[in-house]
Amino acid sequence: MLLSIIYVIGITAEAMTGALSAGRKNMDWFGVMLVASATAIGGGSVRDIILGNYPLTWVQHPEFLLITCVAGIFTTWVAKWVVKFKGVFIRLDALGLAAFSIIGCQKGISMGLHPGICIVAAIITGVFGGLLRDLICRQAPLVLHQELYASVSLVVAGLYLGLLHFGVSDVIATVSTLIIGYLLRMASVRFKWRLPTFTLNMEGSVH
Amino acid sequence: MLLSIIYVIGITAEAMTGALSAGRKNMDWFGVMLVASATAIGGGSVRDIILGNYPLTWVQHPEFLLITCVAGIFTTWVAKWVVKFKGVFIRLDALGLAAFSIIGCQKGISMGLHPGICIVAAIITGVFGGLLRDLICRQAPLVLHQELYASVSLVVAGLYLGLLHFGVSDVIATVSTLIIGYLLRMASVRFKWRLPTFTLNMEGSVH
Amino acid sequence: MLLSIIYVIGITAEAMTGALSAGRKNMDWFGVMLVASATAIGGGSVRDIILGNYPLTWVQHPEFLLITCVAGIFTTWVAKWVVKFKGVFIRLDALGLAAFSIIGCQKGISMGLHPGICIVAAIITGVFGGLLRDLICRQAPLVLHQELYASVSLVVAGLYLGLLHFGVSDVIATVSTLIIGYLLRMASVRFKWRLPTFTLNMEGSVH
Repeated sequence: MLLSIIYVIGITAEAMTGALSAGRKNMDWFGVMLVASATAIGGGSVRDIILGNYPLTWVQHPEFLLITCVAGIFTTWVAKWVVKFKGVFIRLDALGLAAFSIIGCQKGISMGLHPGICIVAAIITGVFGGLLRDLICRQAPLVLHQELYASVSLVVAGLYLGLLHFGVSDVIATVSTLIIGYLLRMASVRFKWRLPTFTLNMEGSVH
Repeated sequence: MLLSIIYVIGITAEAMTGALSAGRKNMDWFGVMLVASATAIGGGSVRDIILGNYPLTWVQHPEFLLITCVAGIFTTWVAKWVVKFKGVFIRLDALGLAAFSIIGCQKGISMGLHPGICIVAAIITGVFGGLLRDLICRQAPLVLHQELYASVSLVVAGLYLGLLHFGVSDVIATVSTLIIGYLLRMASVRFKWRLPTFTLNMEGSVH
Repeated sequence: MLLSIIYVIGITAEAMTGALSAGRKNMDWFGVMLVASATAIGGGSVRDIILGNYPLTWVQHPEFLLITCVAGIFTTWVAKWVVKFKGVFIRLDALGLAAFSIIGCQKGISMGLHPGICIVAAIITGVFGGLLRDLICRQAPLVLHQELYASVSLVVAGLYLGLLHFGVSDVIATVSTLIIGYLLRMASVRFKWRLPTFTLNMEGSVH
């Protein structure tokens, strides 16, 4: 299945970028494997814990966890190469984001959830891995500041649900939203598309 | 039901104060919605995940999530007004804290849990939203430093359990603990009541 | 049962070291109890939430939560003594780490999980308490930088699984891995054994 292949590519790419964050914080190998795995499969794990969808994917398929740990350690040897081929990783990450979002949406559908919650499941799958990485590495959560990221999940999931609703086959819906999600993410990186930012400078805080 | 109305008011007020925290960190709209929702419905979500009480409230009632997201974005337009009417939000927050605590306690009772765990469920419901907000916004967790907050949850839940134990009707127990919790929180803000603080300056740390 | 006694000693020692971290951040009594409890029983809680193994131990046995809260508050009175007898706590922590790891591994076995996931369950039990403590106290997660910690969990769990696999009785497997885990942790503290560290100084980040 196309989505499974892209999923494996996606978690590998995510794990490698997570390992780079761990390296910037001088973590040891365990830290590298933890951050790599949290980045790659943390989003799906948070989604399944929130939805009560047990067992988690990697508990049932430990090979996914093995992939992210190996990818993390491997990154410590090829870090310079990884940083050099930054563009490749941005592309793989964009593909992964689209794939993660569709997978998250499918989980929601298979549990018979409200379409709005399916979209939320897609966003959590796409975004919470990076959020966990930034929490563990104690850096400002990039997905809350940067180019369109959660919005890509939202568009991908909404489009996927809409296509299915209008009777489009699952294969065509998957492939077309994958492509659109990929292009939307790449365009937003390229043209620095962002959501409006809310800036509050006042001292008089409520809390 | 009185408690439901106060719950909706409470999550709206909490979402708006969460959005202000996001604004102080220059987050984008997605960040605003995330922090607003985590502040407002994060406490109940953590409680239900810890208790294994699925499905989560907002998964079953997506309208609550819609309310917190809309309240968050709305806050970006009326931030100055929100900051100006700080007193109103402190009052709504106090009411929400009392309502969240009673709701958390009721969840524990309905699951047949030990009274001590019902009180813990009340505290988690009341406190963890603010804790999540401060984690995501990378600021010192206020509930661990400031005026009585968790303690109000403790008193509200203990009183509620005690009144039910002595045969007081649910309506009277709810209304009276709501009022007492509200007054206790407002008094502790007013008179700066705090729990004793533990300050350790030594360098010789165990960890 | 030996393991239960060591478990209670372990959570008490962990709670006391957690309370010291809270004291270094000037937290109030609620913060002290929260950090103490998160440090002591947070690892097991995260493990059970990830595995969907409900109810959590302390929800079923609230006395464990009582122990950690009392130990936390008690620490505020005897902090100087605790800091002075640092060596005792390092020993109790090493014993606790070995016990937590075996308990985590046993949970995985009793749920019929893959051996690799049993080892992950052991590591989560041993490590995530300290990780939660450092997240709440906003300090660099020590387990990702310092002497062998997660690795001790890994060795303990792997050895325990191996001994059971080769038909060694549960009592002998438990006692021998407890001793080996304790000695390995103490040796790594003594001789400053560490995992290799991954340090990345480059500016050209992917994320």
